[in-house]
Amino acid sequence: MNQPGTQHALAAELERIGRSIDAALERLLPQPLGLQARVTEAMRYAVLAGGKRLRPFLLMQSAGLFGVAPERVLRGAAAIECVHTYSLVHDDLPCMDDDDLRRGRPTTHKAFDEATAVLAGDALLTIAFEILADAETHPSGAVRARLVSELAKASGSNGMIGGQMMDIDAPSHRFGVDEVVLLQRLKTGALFEFCCVAGPILAEADSEHEARLREYARDFGLLFQITDDLLDVLSTPEKTGKAVGKDAQHGKVTLVSLLGIEGARRRAEDLAARAADTVAPYGPPAKWLQMLPPHLLRRES
Amino acid sequence: MNQPGTQHALAAELERIGRSIDAALERLLPQPLGLQARVTEAMRYAVLAGGKRLRPFLLMQSAGLFGVAPERVLRGAAAIECVHTYSLVHDDLPCMDDDDLRRGRPTTHKAFDEATAVLAGDALLTIAFEILADAETHPSGAVRARLVSELAKASGSNGMIGGQMMDIDAPSHRFGVDEVVLLQRLKTGALFEFCCVAGPILAEADSEHEARLREYARDFGLLFQITDDLLDVLSTPEKTGKAVGKDAQHGKVTLVSLLGIEGARRRAEDLAARAADTVAPYGPPAKWLQMLPPHLLRRES
Repeated sequence: MNQPGTQHALAAELERIGRSIDAALERLLPQPLGLQARVTEAMRYAVLAGGKRLRPFLLMQSAGLFGVAPERVLRGAAAIECVHTYSLVHDDLPCMDDDDLRRGRPTTHKAFDEATAVLAGDALLTIAFEILADAETHPSGAVRARLVSELAKASGSNGMIGGQMMDIDAPSHRFGVDEVVLLQRLKTGALFEFCCVAGPILAEADSEHEARLREYARDFGLLFQITDDLLDVLSTPEKTGKAVGKDAQHGKVTLVSLLGIEGARRRAEDLAARAADTVAPYGPPAKWLQMLPPHLLRRES
Repeated sequence: MNQPGTQHALAAELERIGRSIDAALERLLPQPLGLQARVTEAMRYAVLAGGKRLRPFLLMQSAGLFGVAPERVLRGAAAIECVHTYSLVHDDLPCMDDDDLRRGRPTTHKAFDEATAVLAGDALLTIAFEILADAETHPSGAVRARLVSELAKASGSNGMIGGQMMDIDAPSHRFGVDEVVLLQRLKTGALFEFCCVAGPILAEADSEHEARLREYARDFGLLFQITDDLLDVLSTPEKTGKAVGKDAQHGKVTLVSLLGIEGARRRAEDLAARAADTVAPYGPPAKWLQMLPPHLLRRES
């Protein structure tokens, strides 16, 4: 599973799917036309900056387990990337994390201005729901409404936004491991959960599949966050394309600061092994979902 | 139509429906629980501040034309008020209009802080789609998905957000009447259009009804904006509960500045008459929709 050859194959698959996501986003995002062109330019600037497209990849893989045709899945994958990008645009604002650099380029409010960045973020969140609700996403209205509902819950005040609020409020609390795990489950985990349940929802599969893939997503999400926190401690801006060392600088409690580098790494390894096991029953179609967790342990950006 | 008696009856009806909307919002908005309570508190602070609930009123009336039961319509009405409120919260931010006062109280970023206001706005936009997509809104998934789609279009980069972008960019252009009308149609008109077509969508009525009610909404929206601009010139903060004289202060081009007070008022009167005529064919159930435009001509806040 962890041989260089399979790692290389996964990297190639991530790139291949990333390109199809880029093409879908290019097609689905509005063109910069009319007197409001500035906001659509900013939306495109933020989204088409070449992220890793990890969330769309997960969504494509979870749908692949049930044989959902890729062209049908691309809209859901584009929608989740719009939500992810909106959260980065707003997170980078001066009143939030105040970041100047993202994916190796000026953040949206630096390249445009703060008002445009607020509006572009709002518009990216909005278009995600427009994309999902469109009849082209799925012939069943009930399936489309379910996707909208799940995405709204995952990204709302009891999901991602709730996690961001906890994160901002964290300095006034003394979070232990349990609180940090909850914070991360909301802040980054909830969108991963959406990606993983979108597959069975699109396939109208039994709810037991949703439960299993949600379990995978929870382990995957925490694993992802730990590796992100490790990068913040161990990597460089040149490698990650964004500022590093920020957690320590802001006195932020993370699983790395609570468990130590070695303790966090061991926790990440346990999570990676368990996540891979969870999807093993799906056999060969779960190949990439099984390879992704150990791949994350080796990420450099 | 314009006698004091009927104006009084309309005011009473606006209040009655406003109370039922407040109760629905109170029920549908999340309680301030858990470590993310600050964001849900801010959401409730912004929404439960006693606005006029004009958009929910329009939605309830448009549904009333087709006999849709009020309890089914309340969720849609709550959703539109969440979107309207989110737009105010973000609009009031220092990087946008930088307003300290809204509905007679400190704006959300003043009562909380900027980061919380950004997140609360995001969460209000998100929950609007969650409310619409829920099976309790309508038994048909296709109807729910259609509502989500229409609301996303109305509030996105080719709707409300596009209008806000135009508004921010306006000082660098020399807008004439046509551009200002387009700006307002997007910035404030698009949400009114959603309210008016939500009725026939919920009723699964023929598309000709949507077209007619969209026509009403366009006239109504522009009328509303002109009376808003007139208030900005002629009223006081005590009456409106927000700052006035801002348009002139910011050199903003409005239909009032382009047509003069009397010219704008005449235009508003024409729009009010035409809007009332448009819904006349619906007979008695259109009573309030016919009374609302002349009522707006007399608004003081």
